[in-house]
Amino acid sequence: MLAGDVKGVAASGKKGLMEIIAATHAGMSTDEFAKIASDWIANAKHPKTGKPYTKMVYQPMLELIDYLKANDFDVYIVSGGGIEFMRPWTEKVYGIPPQNVVGSSIRTKFEEKDGTPVIMRLVEIDFIDDKEGKPLGINSHIGKRPIAAFGNSDGDFQMLQWTTAGGGRRFGLLVHHDDAEREYAYDRNSHIGQLARGLDEGPKLGWTIVSMKNDWSRVYPGND
Amino acid sequence: MLAGDVKGVAASGKKGLMEIIAATHAGMSTDEFAKIASDWIANAKHPKTGKPYTKMVYQPMLELIDYLKANDFDVYIVSGGGIEFMRPWTEKVYGIPPQNVVGSSIRTKFEEKDGTPVIMRLVEIDFIDDKEGKPLGINSHIGKRPIAAFGNSDGDFQMLQWTTAGGGRRFGLLVHHDDAEREYAYDRNSHIGQLARGLDEGPKLGWTIVSMKNDWSRVYPGND
Repeated sequence: MLAGDVKGVAASGKKGLMEIIAATHAGMSTDEFAKIASDWIANAKHPKTGKPYTKMVYQPMLELIDYLKANDFDVYIVSGGGIEFMRPWTEKVYGIPPQNVVGSSIRTKFEEKDGTPVIMRLVEIDFIDDKEGKPLGINSHIGKRPIAAFGNSDGDFQMLQWTTAGGGRRFGLLVHHDDAEREYAYDRNSHIGQLARGLDEGPKLGWTIVSMKNDWSRVYPGND
Repeated sequence: MLAGDVKGVAASGKKGLMEIIAATHAGMSTDEFAKIASDWIANAKHPKTGKPYTKMVYQPMLELIDYLKANDFDVYIVSGGGIEFMRPWTEKVYGIPPQNVVGSSIRTKFEEKDGTPVIMRLVEIDFIDDKEGKPLGINSHIGKRPIAAFGNSDGDFQMLQWTTAGGGRRFGLLVHHDDAEREYAYDRNSHIGQLARGLDEGPKLGWTIVSMKNDWSRVYPGND
């Protein structure tokens, strides 16, 4: 990856990517890692737009979170991303506190370092919160089946399946990244965020497919 | 265990017990298991007191939970018990919802059964929420270091250590089961719920040791 072999990394898939993450994000305490994540998110800018990543969140997602909270829903982020990478900033950016974040994780170990207890991050994958992993992560962290679930790739397929198969009224939604002008356009052939099965089977399962291009009046907060 | 070898089971320790739990509580879906746990807790009675287990919770613990909630604390149960065993009844009995329960777990697997998505419980231990496991379970599920922690055995030692080592004001408390008349008296030599290191080192770490016999005016809800 350091040699610029992005294609090789992409070809190794999510699992290869997780192995890289384990190797680069391990060997330190959880407190040290939280500081690195906080510092990074406070300073990093997207190479294409030049905006801070915290400003590249989706305006309709922020509005949806607010709407659900205003109607007494508990709202969780269930991401393929590292749970300890996201937790230091999801509250500020999304209004989602650490305990409402579900994500991928590496194994940890409790140790005493110079008499002080620390939790160390090990070079070993614990859980991949993607595809079949998402309903399992939800079951482990929340212990309840969601009433509504929202996604944007086939990594969310099983989460929506699990959600909408529950009794009573359920809601499943997939955002289709089809807006090359304001964001990106990709689906079936993308290495990251592939969306194919969702487009094919989602509508038959009663899920709503949202076109970013046609249905979103605004993509990012502020003026597009 | 079926042959009555309780001593053998006790000698195998928490790990042996967890292996028995995995063998008897696996091979079914999470929904099926939740039903078994709900049915059991609704009907089972303690062999010594004849009371339902739901009435054998500690009155001071209920009062503490209410007091903390009234002061805007989020309250969690962090138990060595099985997370999916506890979740179906902790809300009714303790007012603690499923997402605020941390416990031991077995591995699960997402499957489609006759077209319906299910989460199956596998015969494999995933996580033991005891001793060093407790701070790790807290870190995984809550993602924040507690301000206060309450326990009653050396299985809680590291949780209190992790809690009280945090910055700012922290609180650690251990309940000493020393009331043979109203409950049980045990500590250093007990196979289950051993409390030795906590009694020796807790006070030096600033923890409060509570005597069930001397400090609790009431043990169970209702009249003792």
